[in-house]
Amino acid sequence: MSAATAHLIPLPAEETTPTTRDRIVEVAARSFREIGYQKTTVADIARTLKMSPANVYRFFDSKKAINEAVVERVTGEIEAMIAAIATAPRLDAPERLTRIVTALHNDCRRRWEAHPRVHEMVEAAMSESWSVCQAHVDRIEAVFERVVEDGVREGHFAVADPKAVAACLHAAIVRYCHPLLVSRQQDTALPPLPTMIAFLLGALKAADL
Amino acid sequence: MSAATAHLIPLPAEETTPTTRDRIVEVAARSFREIGYQKTTVADIARTLKMSPANVYRFFDSKKAINEAVVERVTGEIEAMIAAIATAPRLDAPERLTRIVTALHNDCRRRWEAHPRVHEMVEAAMSESWSVCQAHVDRIEAVFERVVEDGVREGHFAVADPKAVAACLHAAIVRYCHPLLVSRQQDTALPPLPTMIAFLLGALKAADL
Repeated sequence: MSAATAHLIPLPAEETTPTTRDRIVEVAARSFREIGYQKTTVADIARTLKMSPANVYRFFDSKKAINEAVVERVTGEIEAMIAAIATAPRLDAPERLTRIVTALHNDCRRRWEAHPRVHEMVEAAMSESWSVCQAHVDRIEAVFERVVEDGVREGHFAVADPKAVAACLHAAIVRYCHPLLVSRQQDTALPPLPTMIAFLLGALKAADL
Repeated sequence: MSAATAHLIPLPAEETTPTTRDRIVEVAARSFREIGYQKTTVADIARTLKMSPANVYRFFDSKKAINEAVVERVTGEIEAMIAAIATAPRLDAPERLTRIVTALHNDCRRRWEAHPRVHEMVEAAMSESWSVCQAHVDRIEAVFERVVEDGVREGHFAVADPKAVAACLHAAIVRYCHPLLVSRQQDTALPPLPTMIAFLLGALKAADL
């Protein structure tokens, strides 16, 4: 059975439950992290799960499709983390924005620094599965946009176009939150994050956008 | 003769002229760009120059040292380009800053997009020769700092700490000017550069820093 046609065969009822799919994603995530995306094969993932490669292909067309599921899980965790901060009660918009950027930075450090090989997974997603990355960027910026709008309502920010400003904010923190830069580049050249956040909040107080 | 001791032997007068060293850097730059840093050997560089590897080692201790010279040449060109804009007459500071950031972005695109293998050179410099990268960052930020100071004098910017603000500005444009991101990541998610520059100029008009 080829990878291209395997998904056309109906799955037995017990295998349509999330469990097997989740276990594949779990094992793949661990292998991509520890062994690296390049060196991990679908056969390796199947062997760890004590199943046949054909069975893995019933859930995922390709290693690329498995990677997309792994990336969606990770990015989903990150998005849930910042969405919780965005809706936290008793915090004004500048404070929520500060906490969101700090959380994104700390999460990125914590998640990627321990596993240098994770870059392969990120690079594969960036080059082969851009729509997954784009969707993550869009969801992060939707959270920023909501907080910027709150800040305008609260009188903290002077912003005419919260969507454009949210995209600029996100682009401006790439150096602190992008897995390809955070763990790879030494931070000697980088302003401390609180300084950078103060700078960006300044932009929100008097934005021309 | 080993690479480690070769540099201890005095060079004949005609070889201390910049010409041979420059030719090595020129050939190495082309090879790193076209074949890639990983696959280029010192022997390849010597062969192209019709000289022995030992002769190359009289000028450079290692391939890493050659890469540092190549990177210093490229970064020197970039720094000269923006220094010329920074001191251009009849332009106010916001306009000079706009032109500098735009020039950095366009130069990065032009220089790296045509040669995907150049990433290997950049990555090698980032991991093996950080001081060369750091010196480049410092010189770029010194130019930003000077223009920010000019803007304060001209009454365009309200900035208490031009050095800190220059570092924030530089960090904020990484997504537009870093060779590892500009050519590798698709730009669908990115605000147009003029929008980003307007956002950053807003920060300079009312910086808390």
